[in-house]
Parts: sequence; C-alpha cells; structure tokens
Amino acid sequence: MQNTVIVEKVKLKKLRNAILLTGLPGIGLIGQVVGRYLVEELNADKVANIYSPHFPHQVFMTKKGGMRLIRNSIYHCKGKKRDILILLGDIQAMSSVGQYEVAGAILDYCKSLNVTEILSVGGYSTGKIAEERRLFGVATSDGLRNRFKKHGVIFGEAKGSIVGAAGLLPALGKHKGMEGSCIMGETHGSYIDTASARQIVLLLSKYLDIKVDIKRLNKQAQESQKILKKVQDEVQKTMAAQFEASNRNLSYIR
Amino acid sequence: MQNTVIVEKVKLKKLRNAILLTGLPGIGLIGQVVGRYLVEELNADKVANIYSPHFPHQVFMTKKGGMRLIRNSIYHCKGKKRDILILLGDIQAMSSVGQYEVAGAILDYCKSLNVTEILSVGGYSTGKIAEERRLFGVATSDGLRNRFKKHGVIFGEAKGSIVGAAGLLPALGKHKGMEGSCIMGETHGSYIDTASARQIVLLLSKYLDIKVDIKRLNKQAQESQKILKKVQDEVQKTMAAQFEASNRNLSYIR
Amino acid sequence: MQNTVIVEKVKLKKLRNAILLTGLPGIGLIGQVVGRYLVEELNADKVANIYSPHFPHQVFMTKKGGMRLIRNSIYHCKGKKRDILILLGDIQAMSSVGQYEVAGAILDYCKSLNVTEILSVGGYSTGKIAEERRLFGVATSDGLRNRFKKHGVIFGEAKGSIVGAAGLLPALGKHKGMEGSCIMGETHGSYIDTASARQIVLLLSKYLDIKVDIKRLNKQAQESQKILKKVQDEVQKTMAAQFEASNRNLSYIR
Amino acid sequence: MQNTVIVEKVKLKKLRNAILLTGLPGIGLIGQVVGRYLVEELNADKVANIYSPHFPHQVFMTKKGGMRLIRNSIYHCKGKKRDILILLGDIQAMSSVGQYEVAGAILDYCKSLNVTEILSVGGYSTGKIAEERRLFGVATSDGLRNRFKKHGVIFGEAKGSIVGAAGLLPALGKHKGMEGSCIMGETHGSYIDTASARQIVLLLSKYLDIKVDIKRLNKQAQESQKILKKVQDEVQKTMAAQFEASNRNLSYIR
Repeated sequence: MQNTVIVEKVKLKKLRNAILLTGLPGIGLIGQVVGRYLVEELNADKVANIYSPHFPHQVFMTKKGGMRLIRNSIYHCKGKKRDILILLGDIQAMSSVGQYEVAGAILDYCKSLNVTEILSVGGYSTGKIAEERRLFGVATSDGLRNRFKKHGVIFGEAKGSIVGAAGLLPALGKHKGMEGSCIMGETHGSYIDTASARQIVLLLSKYLDIKVDIKRLNKQAQESQKILKKVQDEVQKTMAAQFEASNRNLSYIR
Repeated sequence: MQNTVIVEKVKLKKLRNAILLTGLPGIGLIGQVVGRYLVEELNADKVANIYSPHFPHQVFMTKKGGMRLIRNSIYHCKGKKRDILILLGDIQAMSSVGQYEVAGAILDYCKSLNVTEILSVGGYSTGKIAEERRLFGVATSDGLRNRFKKHGVIFGEAKGSIVGAAGLLPALGKHKGMEGSCIMGETHGSYIDTASARQIVLLLSKYLDIKVDIKRLNKQAQESQKILKKVQDEVQKTMAAQFEASNRNLSYIR
Repeated sequence: MQNTVIVEKVKLKKLRNAILLTGLPGIGLIGQVVGRYLVEELNADKVANIYSPHFPHQVFMTKKGGMRLIRNSIYHCKGKKRDILILLGDIQAMSSVGQYEVAGAILDYCKSLNVTEILSVGGYSTGKIAEERRLFGVATSDGLRNRFKKHGVIFGEAKGSIVGAAGLLPALGKHKGMEGSCIMGETHGSYIDTASARQIVLLLSKYLDIKVDIKRLNKQAQESQKILKKVQDEVQKTMAAQFEASNRNLSYIR
Repeated sequence: MQNTVIVEKVKLKKLRNAILLTGLPGIGLIGQVVGRYLVEELNADKVANIYSPHFPHQVFMTKKGGMRLIRNSIYHCKGKKRDILILLGDIQAMSSVGQYEVAGAILDYCKSLNVTEILSVGGYSTGKIAEERRLFGVATSDGLRNRFKKHGVIFGEAKGSIVGAAGLLPALGKHKGMEGSCIMGETHGSYIDTASARQIVLLLSKYLDIKVDIKRLNKQAQESQKILKKVQDEVQKTMAAQFEASNRNLSYIR
C-alpha cells in the first residue's frame, strides 16, 4: 500500500449541502470528545474507513480476538436541512507529507459527495482554567464568520497557528471550493476538557439545528480518554521499539 | 530502484487454496525460528525474492566470496490438501511507509497465486517465563477463530497491538479478500524462546496436516539466533555510521 | 495533496525577458528584507501562491479571523526593459527532497512565463561586522559575472557552499536554460543586517534600472524581523510538539 | 526535481564490453583516490552528471565565481579491449531510499550503454595497519572470482556487509544482467590509505590491461583528501544548521 485509500462501506448518494465535522485527537481532547459524542447521539453510520501508510505500521487487537489496522473513519447522518459527515480517528498522520496526503484524500472524497463546508473542532490552549470557556474561531469567508458570530464565537482574538488536520482540512478545502472554519474551545491545554467540549456541542446543536442530549457528554468524555490512552500506549510501543533499537546501536559503537 | 520488487525464481502455477506463513524477525525470535524450521523440514523451495529501497542500503558478503542484497524471500511446498508459502527475511522495512509498501507488494504477489489465507507467527511478550507456553491468536473471521480454538489457541485475551509485518500482512490481506490470523506464542520477550516456537510448530502441524520432526528444532533455533545476531550487527553498522556522522557534526559546531 | 502546486491568481501573459528575484528567509535575513522591500516599493502584484507537502502541516490564523496555509508567493511588476518576478515566503521546504521539489516547481512555472534569469539574494556570513558591506556573487556564466562586476560585485572570493533555495534556484535553473546568479551581502550572520540589505537594494536598482526609495528600508526591515519571529515561533510549535511526544516515549520506556 | 536524473554531456555510442568502476567517498578514502587517479591518468572525459533530490540541497561555489549542484559524474575512456567508465562524486545519497534510487538510475544508464560489468572499489577496515595491504573481494560469479584470484585478490575472507554504493551497484547490477564485484583494500579505517589505494591501482592496471604511472598517486591522494575535507565541511553546514534549529526548539520548550 503506497497511498492513502478511502474504503467506502456504504455508497452514499450525492448529499444535500453536506458539512464535514472533524473529531480527531488534539489539544484538550476536545475535537475527539465532540466527534465521538455526536456520532453516538446522532446515531451516525460509518460510511468509510481511511487507511494510510502515513499511520503507524500497527494493528490493534480487538476484544473478541479480531484485528484492525490503524485508521480514520467517516460517519454519516441526516440533519434537518443538510447531511452531516463526521471524521473520527485513532491518530493523525505522522509527518507533514503524510498530513497533506491524508487531508487531500479526505477532501477529494468529500468533494465527490457534494460536501460544501468543512468544520473542524479543536482546543485553544491558554495555560489557564477559565470559568466560562469561550469559543474562538477562524473561517475562510466573511459569511461564515458572521454566521458563527451570531452564536457567540469570537473571531480575530486567537493568534498563531493551528497544527495538523484541524487546520489543514478547512484551509485545503478552500482550494477545492469548499468553505471552512475551525472552532476552538478555550482550554488549559494539559488535560481533557469536557466543559469546553460541552460549549462546542451546544454551539453545533444551534449551528446545525440538531438535538443532542448534553447530559451523557461527561460519561462519553471519560470513555474517550480511556480509549485514547490505550491507543497512545500502543503507538508508543512502536516508537519505544525504535528508540531501543537505536540505543542498542549507541552502546554498540562506544 | 524506487519501489519494492518481487523477483520470481520459479513461476508457480495458480495454487490450491494456498496459505502464506510468515517467519520474520520479531519478539522472542519465534516467527523466524518457526519459519526457518518449516522451510527446512518441509523441503520448501525458494520461489521469489523481495527487494526494497525500504531495506537498509547494504549487501551481505557470503562465505564463498559472493554478495547479496538484503531481502525477504518466499518459499513453497505442497501440503496434503493445500499449497504452503513461507515468508522468511533478514529484516523488516525500516519505516511505516516502507512497511505498508512491502506488505502490499507481498500481498499482491500472493493474490496473483490464489493465496486465500495469511497466517503470521509471532511472540506475545508477558515479561514472565510461563511453564507451559500458551498460544494467543487474533483472526479476521469467526470461522478462522473457531478452527484455531479447536487446537487450543486462545482468542480475546491478548491485548494491545501488533507492530510490523505480523500484524499488517493479515490485516491488509483482509482488504484484498484473504482471510488472516496472527498466532502468538507466550514468551518473556527478552530472549529467544524455542519452547514457545515448538508449541507453534505443533499447532501448525495439526492445522496444516503436515508432518514435522520436532527434535531438530533446538538446533535450528540456535542457528537462527546466530544468523540473526550477524544480520543485526551488520545493520547496526549503517546506523552506527550515521550516528558517527551526526556526532562529528555536533563537535564541529560547538 | 501529494505534490508541490503553484496556484495562479493572475494569468500572466508571456513576459519580456523576465527575471526572478528571490526573497526567502536566510542568513542575516537579507534575502527576505530585500524581497519584501522591493514588493512594496515597486507595487508588485501577487500572481501565484506555492503550496507544498514539504512545508509544515500548519495554518496561520489571520488578524481578522481568517486562516491560510504556509506558502511561498510570487509577485510581479513591470520594469523599464523587462518584467520582474519576486519570490517571497514564510519558510523553505524542510528536507533535501522537499527543497529540490519546490525549486523544480517554481522553475517550471518561471520557464512557462519566459523567465530567462534567476537572481537569488542572500547573506554571506563572516562572523565579523564590516564597516562597509561588500557584495559577493556567484553566477552561471561569464556574461553575468561581467555585468555584476561593473556594479562592484566581487566574484571568486566567497568560498564554500550555499544552502537552500538561494543556491538551488539559480543552479537548477541553469539546467532548464535560464541564467542565474546569487548575490550575497557581507554580514555577521547572527542578526538581521539592514545595512547589507541596503547595499543589495542599491545594486538591484542599478542592475534592473528601477527606482527605489531607500529611506523606508529600515522600517521595512524591522517589520520583516517581527513577522519572521512569529512564523518561526509557530513552526517551532510543531517541532516542540513532536519533541514532547518523543520525550514522553522515553520516560515511558525507562 | 523529484527524481534522480542523468544529464549526458556527451552522447556515447554503444560501448564495447564496457566496465563501470566506482570511485566514491568511503572507508579509507580508497575508492575515491583510486577513481580520481584513474580519471587523471587515463585522460578520461566526463560524459554525464548525476543530480538527485537525495543529495544535500546545497550548491558549491567555484574558484572563478561559478556555482554547481552537488552531483556524481561519469567519465569515459577507451581501454585496449574494452571501454571504461568511472563514477566519481562528492557524496553518496543520504538515505536508503535515496541510495537505491541513485544506484538504479546509474545502472539503467550503464545498461543503455552496453556495460557488462560493475567493479566497485572500497576499503576493508581491520583497525590495524598491515605492512602489506591485502586485497579482498566479493563477486557475483565464479568466473569473476577466478579472474581476480589470478591477480591475488582474496575471496571468502572478508566478512559482514558493504554499506552504500560500493555494495549496491554490483549487487543491483546483477539483477539487470551485469556481472559485478567489489574489490576492497585492507586498511585501518580511520585515515586515508594511499598504500592500499596503490595496491588496487596496480591490480586494475593488470585486470584492465591499462598503463598507469603509480608515482603521481601520492600527490593525487593528498589533493583528494583536501577536496573531500572541504566537501564534508560544507555538507556539515547543512546538518549543523538543522541541529541548531532543533536545538533552538529544545530551549524554546523547556
């Protein structure tokens, strides 16, 4: 396997004004918690898996004795006025070259399904614990900014850069004719932030006109944290093995 | 050479319900010991070599003054009811991108030969020395799991992930329409484990309905260890050279 | 996105004897200061953006709440006798493979526009602060050397090598039929050198027969330094994150 | 530039039973000294340059104020009974993927010119200074081994592996239908060994039936050492810059 591939489980017909939400691991685990929560609450169906040689060369063992490659997945559900796709994943690609390739493959798939908007979700690290978590945003058009401002998202205050898929997907999407934004929940940055995730879920329920029961979010967040911990421990095995190998070499030549 | 290539030494005709066994270096050296042992016991013939730019850029000098590239090789023999292929090798590819490419090339070759099942062999590290080595498994279907359970393989207990070809080959194979499993012998993890390798050979003799003389296994295991040691020492030369080069740079700029 | 792409904002017609100037980050920040200054002074228009998977996988957040990929850009203006293109950028590609790919893409674009000459601008680090900054040059032909010598550029004294785009662009350009040179301002090397940049701007105004007001250069240089500082801080975030990740692994395995 | 390219300066017609000698940097500098010496003694003409994105992204400044990319080059001369090609170069590719790609490109070029044999030259490091330097060899056929044995080359004693182009070129060449060998001069390994280079030159004069004046070898060796030193210093600049960059990052995050 030399390139990132999208394996469709369900052949979707062209969607209505579809939006892609992203829920990948990142700052404060906010994106992943929000993504997993929405998939569960909205009873979204998995429609595609994404495999890539830029993910670690590992397979996970499942509880019933199965195995599966490291992957990202795309889920689908119908909202009132538009189709919603949600991107979940164990991990992001491990290099810049890999990040651009995976993002490009996901966007080509989205384009083929008539997706018109990319909305990535992440955390904005301040190093402090704010009482009320604010939501910061960046977007590719004035129209989008105005729509989010109505719901209290703050534009022009977040500074610096967004590393990884949460930035690349909406920014590259613009080059393919899709609007895009990244909504970031204010967070300390060093631990999982369910309070910030809740603010984003509330925003999305208004922005997308969907109903979600916010009560189960805490439980979902704890599960997400456990799953992520396991995945990270496993991926570290690969890196640890490589470190041991190189360490052996050092002792060998001294 | 920009891609992994499979060089066929023997043009096999389409095989009967063929299975690929893997015997590459890994935890406890179990896979490699089992693989080499079966090739010898079953008088398997080498049918293909695999070369890759993702293997180290080194050639081995042979005893008679020849030279050969670092490679993996595939051997073939006929079992009672099905053809058996065995994958042996000096080394695994050195990056994720390389691991996916090499695994993909091997699976495409297998597919072209009508291989229907991938069975990789490895070790499952527990950090303890068990009196009786158990065999743990993961597989891509209930049918496979049931067949192995009959022979005492335990499913659902091994946790975490499988790093490298032993995981990638059966998991990627599933995407190409082949069934797959990975059988892991319980082992301490820090040294070669012939006792665990023996358990797997006994399992395979039943699973594949082949006769093997278990007595020679110890001798074979010791030889495997010696060969592996040599290969590792050589590959370390490349890494050591790179380390020295970078070390020279450090002293240069301080 | 698997390859470097040039996205044209303006479709230029074939240009008249066009020259490409480069203004990328490098020694003493001289190239970037000169490039930015000329774009402003000459009212050059942006005609193309360059995106590459060999740039960091980050997007910058803009003041008004927008976002943009890391990129290089090409500007255009008309001189008296020839068209002038200027290459600016946040950053250079992060590996040799990336540097060659990005340079090749830029040169193919230039070739398609009838560019006949590449002139890269950089600093030549001496570790001393000279009272009068000399200008050193290398060029791909005697004709070019003679033209620059008339304006006081010194050839044959600078020793060693030029790392990155300032060397690759004119040297690779020669292989595509374009003449090329690299003009380096003498500089200490450890900090921004506006005095040296000024010497190069004066040279270029004579060489290209263009009028520039040298007075605003200091202000422009200070702004360049601030922008560069921000970009570097952001790119370091990616690298720092990778370092933290690998550091976590070290503590994990010890 | 995304791939290794061979730029022909002279279009050679199909050659007579041609042999490629390699003279690249390596252990004891033996290969490079021998290669450069033969090019000079035999008045060989440069026929092709090899450029690769796997070489460092640097250009060298020449004495007269020119510039040139890092490259390998191929020279040609006519021997009594066969054509001789000699490969010289500043450096070898910097990764396994690069080494395989560059070797493949060189071999394809050789194949197109009817080259039938690859003879690489290197050092065999013993960590001791032998009074009489022996020559060790590995080769791809009994015929070749016998031919070299007649001239005193020892087969079957050198152990381990050959890292880099000196091993890859003859070993990969075999897969393209060319015979190949690597002749290694016994050497300490830590410094330039003209005595060992002299033994190889004497061997080659007999093996290839060419006349060379051995007296000038010492002078040539000293020059080679100086040139190599300069090249290494320059290439280290790139690596040092990368190290400084990553070091800045470390201090930044602590």
